[in-house]
Amino acid sequence: MEKEKPIGVFDSGIGGMSVMKQLISAMPNEDIVYFGDTARVPYGSKSNATVVEYSMQIAKFLANKNIKALVVACNTVSSIALPSLRQKYNIPIIGVIEPGAEFALRETKTGRIGVIGTRATIANNAYSKSILKRNPKVEVFEKACPLFVPLAEEGWLKHKAVYDIAEEYLKELRDLNIDTLVLGCTHYPILREVIQEVIGKDVKLVDSGVTTAEVVREEIDRIGFLTNSNSMGNQRIFVTDINPNFKDVAELFLGMKLKEIDKVDLETLTA
Amino acid sequence: MEKEKPIGVFDSGIGGMSVMKQLISAMPNEDIVYFGDTARVPYGSKSNATVVEYSMQIAKFLANKNIKALVVACNTVSSIALPSLRQKYNIPIIGVIEPGAEFALRETKTGRIGVIGTRATIANNAYSKSILKRNPKVEVFEKACPLFVPLAEEGWLKHKAVYDIAEEYLKELRDLNIDTLVLGCTHYPILREVIQEVIGKDVKLVDSGVTTAEVVREEIDRIGFLTNSNSMGNQRIFVTDINPNFKDVAELFLGMKLKEIDKVDLETLTA
Repeated sequence: MEKEKPIGVFDSGIGGMSVMKQLISAMPNEDIVYFGDTARVPYGSKSNATVVEYSMQIAKFLANKNIKALVVACNTVSSIALPSLRQKYNIPIIGVIEPGAEFALRETKTGRIGVIGTRATIANNAYSKSILKRNPKVEVFEKACPLFVPLAEEGWLKHKAVYDIAEEYLKELRDLNIDTLVLGCTHYPILREVIQEVIGKDVKLVDSGVTTAEVVREEIDRIGFLTNSNSMGNQRIFVTDINPNFKDVAELFLGMKLKEIDKVDLETLTA
Repeated sequence: MEKEKPIGVFDSGIGGMSVMKQLISAMPNEDIVYFGDTARVPYGSKSNATVVEYSMQIAKFLANKNIKALVVACNTVSSIALPSLRQKYNIPIIGVIEPGAEFALRETKTGRIGVIGTRATIANNAYSKSILKRNPKVEVFEKACPLFVPLAEEGWLKHKAVYDIAEEYLKELRDLNIDTLVLGCTHYPILREVIQEVIGKDVKLVDSGVTTAEVVREEIDRIGFLTNSNSMGNQRIFVTDINPNFKDVAELFLGMKLKEIDKVDLETLTA
């Protein structure tokens, strides 16, 4: 039955777990199949053509798991591959950019919005395009922060070096007097505390994962596919590589313990 | 003719350019074919099985380019895949670990040697095994420094954050009174200045690339395959992905301008 199919979630690696956390919180009874392309992470420094190619491979894998909706829990993929994915698959496909853009517009009072993300997300102007399409009167200022991902994965959440690096990346945006800052990468919410302190406590931080989960819920509800189950949903995790500290970092992002993790061979994926 | 064949060099990404720099300096007349697996970098956080699989694919590609020797300019691959590569190919195959280990033993006076590298290189105890096999009387202390690679690739060579991060990683080794420190990752030589300052100016830094180039020269000479050419050799560069800032970072590592860069599709590689 359509309603009891799982929701597919995919990310280039572990970061999408922060979006899955919000999905579980918004729809605790839904089953979720998560795919993290940990053998080929990071996508943020790859070319657009490569990102589209990998995304299509993963969508095919998840489509074979009979999903009722696909959540692209990766800013880089959301900024590049959504048109190709939507052309191929006839289920709701929700990225993190559009919900994040809407959330930012709801939060801003001065119309001065900052966006931080990977090099690829920022180079594609993904958020500014999406925000300005909805409201051309606001101003959007973007800044790539490539070191935030490795810092988050190292688990250094409040180290002095994190403050120094945040200061280097964020001082421009602070001087531009933004009132809203979009955390345009799924890794960034776990560095939230440092980012808030450096950008200033009056700046609203927008975590795309939160609004993405709301949009996914609305969309599945709209087509009448919310589960009838009253018990806690299951999470199945597939990754292309399991390294020794994967589980720890994943649990840091997810905020809960993980059960089974399955490894998918890249040969299977590219076949 | 065997002598005029190129030398193959491969790395998970860009870092091996620091080894290629030393090869050019030691053998300016040799042609070099460089392969950087930039679509799947970094290897340092992947499982051993995945690293072996990727290495075999790349060795096959380079073997088809008719190379006379293969330089594995990647510490992670050198620590994991050399036995598989040597079993399959009957040309000299030189990694960076063994030359680095020999160099360290030549430099140390107190017999207290530190080694820094990626998580994978350190988890495999690659350098300590290689050093202790040669001289079981010395003491080797190892420390993974995962953030050094993204810092080097961001081009932040002397930023305050780099000092803070180096301090965090290196303080243990400094307190252990080492007199020699192996830079067990091809990215680290470009952070040399900060590392030297933090570990202390009396500690000898060992750049594996320098001794690897010497060993490659000796090995090719031993089998009588050094080129007869008197003109500057050519460098051909193949990568699996070209991202916008690849060329800048590669030139930072290589210390010279790059000419042509060719992209190889992963489909071709895995076929």
